[in-house]
Amino acid sequence: MTEAAGAPLGNGPVESDRAAATRARLLDAAREAFATKGFDATTTRDIAAAAGMSPAAVYIHHRSKEDLLYQIALDGHHRVLALVQEGAATSDDPREQLPAIVHRWVDHHLRERTMARIVNYEIASLTPEHRAEIDALRDKAISAVGRIVQAGKRQGVFRTKRPDLATAAILSLAVDTSRWYQETPRWTPKTISDYYADLALVIVQAKD
Amino acid sequence: MTEAAGAPLGNGPVESDRAAATRARLLDAAREAFATKGFDATTTRDIAAAAGMSPAAVYIHHRSKEDLLYQIALDGHHRVLALVQEGAATSDDPREQLPAIVHRWVDHHLRERTMARIVNYEIASLTPEHRAEIDALRDKAISAVGRIVQAGKRQGVFRTKRPDLATAAILSLAVDTSRWYQETPRWTPKTISDYYADLALVIVQAKD
Repeated sequence: MTEAAGAPLGNGPVESDRAAATRARLLDAAREAFATKGFDATTTRDIAAAAGMSPAAVYIHHRSKEDLLYQIALDGHHRVLALVQEGAATSDDPREQLPAIVHRWVDHHLRERTMARIVNYEIASLTPEHRAEIDALRDKAISAVGRIVQAGKRQGVFRTKRPDLATAAILSLAVDTSRWYQETPRWTPKTISDYYADLALVIVQAKD
Repeated sequence: MTEAAGAPLGNGPVESDRAAATRARLLDAAREAFATKGFDATTTRDIAAAAGMSPAAVYIHHRSKEDLLYQIALDGHHRVLALVQEGAATSDDPREQLPAIVHRWVDHHLRERTMARIVNYEIASLTPEHRAEIDALRDKAISAVGRIVQAGKRQGVFRTKRPDLATAAILSLAVDTSRWYQETPRWTPKTISDYYADLALVIVQAKD
């Protein structure tokens, strides 16, 4: 028996990789099931079947169905927060930072609609502790956008009288794409990301 | 026995009024339950209990749980369509029609958030026939707004290069309020309706 084959109960890197792969497969199956049937109507049996595993396998890798939802929501929120920080880092000028963030956020929501729908519409099913953690990440992303709109207002390059409401509107547009968007030749993800990035500047009434 | 008391199986006006009241009570209970627990997690037993009736009573007045969802969605969509038509009838000028519609639509969504959430997020659970009927009503409301934006563009009072995407954005903002809005002293329903009515004109780049 070679080292690489590993013992069934070994704790070496091979076993860890396998465990990680199994966890990822279950997360993919859960993501698909939650987005299609909704969290409430999905059973751990559905998730196990979609991943080609026994229901018991789900509980070896994840504490509960709620834990799967939490992992998906956590991943989704961390990715959005990273995109916001990346967009903010592209420039010091709010007139460039704002469209850079909106473009990334919308593009992500359109390309990862399955995840975005779960993140937006199923988080009411999280435990209060998990919900608080997710809300804190969400608030961090929202605040980062809000600070850029406020900076533009302070610098006199955004003329909106309501930077708070303008921020809410811009983020609402980005988030809601996962509800209504259906790809057509005229409306590709790029069409919408480009338009919404420009529209963000229209909404804050940016000076040319 | 007086006429007004009615026989238990009588078909007179008294009995009809009672039946209508019972139907309405069940619809209210279903609306609350669907909005709180989601359609899938709600049982007819939950609805009956909330209405203070036996589960069997639900089936006397409504064919199924899906039929209750359909009645709620139908009512919600008819009301939005009526508001759009009312807003369009206030003027012949797209610069007045558009904010009049957006104000009514947002105000309705904020005041009737329970219904709006069901209408926006639970309609995937309708039968294909019911879904098609609801989609047709929704398309009618969307088209009415689109025609006004196109008219403004044609008349040269709206400068947007993308009336189609501007319409999608304006409606997305209105619909999504039911997801994120929470009343605060600074952000009353009136604050949001007023701001979004003005913002619609900013989005279509209306001439002053």
